[in-house]
Amino acid sequence: MALTTTSPRERMTLARVAARSVALLSDDEKRAALTSIADAIEADTDAITAANSEDLQRGAGSGLSTALLDRLKLDATRVHALADAVREIAALPDPVGRVLDERVMANGVTLTKVAVPFGVIGSIYEARPNVTVDIAALALRSGNAVVLRGGTAAELTNAALITAMRGALASCGIDPEAVQTVDEFGREGARELMHARGLVDVLVPRGSAQLIETVVTESSVPVIETGAGIVHILLDATAREDWAREIVVNAKVQRPSVCNAVETVLVHRDAAARLVPGVVADLQAAGVTVHGDSVVATLAPDVVPAEEADWMTEYLSLDVSMKIVENLDEALAHIRSYSTHHTESIITDDAASAARFLAEVDSAVVMVNTSTRFTDGGEFGFGAEVGISTQKLHARGPMGLAELTSTKWLVRGAGQVRL
Amino acid sequence: MALTTTSPRERMTLARVAARSVALLSDDEKRAALTSIADAIEADTDAITAANSEDLQRGAGSGLSTALLDRLKLDATRVHALADAVREIAALPDPVGRVLDERVMANGVTLTKVAVPFGVIGSIYEARPNVTVDIAALALRSGNAVVLRGGTAAELTNAALITAMRGALASCGIDPEAVQTVDEFGREGARELMHARGLVDVLVPRGSAQLIETVVTESSVPVIETGAGIVHILLDATAREDWAREIVVNAKVQRPSVCNAVETVLVHRDAAARLVPGVVADLQAAGVTVHGDSVVATLAPDVVPAEEADWMTEYLSLDVSMKIVENLDEALAHIRSYSTHHTESIITDDAASAARFLAEVDSAVVMVNTSTRFTDGGEFGFGAEVGISTQKLHARGPMGLAELTSTKWLVRGAGQVRL
Repeated sequence: MALTTTSPRERMTLARVAARSVALLSDDEKRAALTSIADAIEADTDAITAANSEDLQRGAGSGLSTALLDRLKLDATRVHALADAVREIAALPDPVGRVLDERVMANGVTLTKVAVPFGVIGSIYEARPNVTVDIAALALRSGNAVVLRGGTAAELTNAALITAMRGALASCGIDPEAVQTVDEFGREGARELMHARGLVDVLVPRGSAQLIETVVTESSVPVIETGAGIVHILLDATAREDWAREIVVNAKVQRPSVCNAVETVLVHRDAAARLVPGVVADLQAAGVTVHGDSVVATLAPDVVPAEEADWMTEYLSLDVSMKIVENLDEALAHIRSYSTHHTESIITDDAASAARFLAEVDSAVVMVNTSTRFTDGGEFGFGAEVGISTQKLHARGPMGLAELTSTKWLVRGAGQVRL
Repeated sequence: MALTTTSPRERMTLARVAARSVALLSDDEKRAALTSIADAIEADTDAITAANSEDLQRGAGSGLSTALLDRLKLDATRVHALADAVREIAALPDPVGRVLDERVMANGVTLTKVAVPFGVIGSIYEARPNVTVDIAALALRSGNAVVLRGGTAAELTNAALITAMRGALASCGIDPEAVQTVDEFGREGARELMHARGLVDVLVPRGSAQLIETVVTESSVPVIETGAGIVHILLDATAREDWAREIVVNAKVQRPSVCNAVETVLVHRDAAARLVPGVVADLQAAGVTVHGDSVVATLAPDVVPAEEADWMTEYLSLDVSMKIVENLDEALAHIRSYSTHHTESIITDDAASAARFLAEVDSAVVMVNTSTRFTDGGEFGFGAEVGISTQKLHARGPMGLAELTSTKWLVRGAGQVRL
């Protein structure tokens, strides 16, 4: 379904109208719609990869980095994977209609709190075209319409994906305006999306810390803040050496480019001589550059001196910072100062230290003796992940489909009035 | 405990530090703190009423309306009622520490989602000094610190109340900076509060629609939007006459100045001749002015002609607008256009109409055959009410203590890493 060229506001109004009928779709209808979208994306593989080739060519011409070009790239295999991800979302249980609370007033009036779709979800994101399909599928599965604003670098790819999705909706008898984009309107489209109170119910930005900061600061539409992770692991005085080595290496190396990868390792001074040499050796063997303080540098070779800026850096690369702390209090204070409140883990054999860490660290996910890489909707058993919320309002930590719903109270009486 | 004169930012930083210890208080400690606050407010009755007399004198001098002066007024009886409200909040169950979800990963890692305090709650509100005590008590009961910004008209009264509360906290060994105000800093204080991301976790504005609109639009701190209610009752074709008359009168007259009072009555054309005369007669007998469309005016005497502006007006007075609609679709469309998404009720004997109304009206509370005045935390059994959220993020409808908490995932392992 081609998009009519109108204004961002008209586009969002169409999405708002579509949201009304999408909210009333049954579980089966939503499953069928997503299955149809998955099929349409596969059927359109040639058009999608052709559009993507053009985006890649433009990107290479304008000097995009190899890493960004790789994120942008969609070949037939990746298109197939995108479609499969939609099928997985189709198979998840419907989050709409769940009864969350039931009460009966003394006068017999009944109260039922049910999960309902938000209405229209907006998303502003960067160069990964998979987000286009992912967010649209998650929004539709939870009964919402969606307004997308992707990165300029992926504009043609996104347009091809959106065309496929809109066509699939129309073929199911669903209003195709439920999947909207404001991409052609550039920055103005993003700006209007951030100020579309009354048309858009919630904005989910996905991308760099800077993008998210901009959206949070500028939007008058409520935002769910996701992502940025300056993640800490504390090796406590009593940390087991094998766990310390395995967990730190896993948390850094298994996938360094993601938000739940560890960025700073704090080491209790009483464990420094025992743990630092082995942990650093394992990290270095895995290709990691360790940015350490002066004590770390005396305990291990090839340590790059850490500067203040290192404690504030989300490397997203094979780099990690390491600092010796006097005690648990200093560790907690360091985390308070530098954490983005995403995930922190303590490795310890001391139940009291573990309990204090769990109670006092103010992050979405707080762990004992395990890898920060587990902070993930899939790992948590949600089946799909909308993002990882680092704010405290509405949703905190990995978000599944349930977090794309709001609630409504249904109140049923038989003529009762308030006395 | 006197406040030291610093900047709004320093005040909020002190609250942030205090929030760390308040979050760790036990249920008993929080109860004791609130009991102590209630006692301190009663013990300070003379100082509080003296400060209030000065506020009232200034207010009368600057031409405040009688209604506003009445809201502002605190005599010994009202101070006593304030203290009792705090004791009621003390008696509520602790919302902190509730286990909201528990999962075990296949590898044995356990996940526990628990309710935790937000940290620092900000509130911007108008001339009712009871809000000062109410919000502070609700925040503390849920383990939060609070930063208050009340109306200028109540400045001395609020200062006296805050002094009493801070003294009570200090006497319990709790950091008195957990109750903060930025009142002395005027508009600048409000502005800094709205932009205190990182210091203040959530803002709860209370007051006029204009105040709330300003806070929602200006804040970069997440806001929970409360209050404004352009509330509708639809008298369907099959509405019972006795219920229609009793419910409309109750919803308008029982307390016209509050957000859950009805403002617009829609009447199905097939029921107009049957219902309008009696409903209007009962309303007029209770002193209500009916602003009706031309059909309403032919069915009842003394109807003031309704203009477009009437459908957009939250009267908060003994006025109501009344309109005849062709059918349920037109009623739903009218509600969509003019409702503030607070509460709407249908009076009907038709199960299909009731079901459509419940499903399609996009408001926090949707009712069948009962009075909109029931949208209230107390009536819902929450024991206390933070406000009525008209937004969809985090909380929707009446908010109790639970809505002043966020969540945290506690993850416990034994050396597991991600494969």
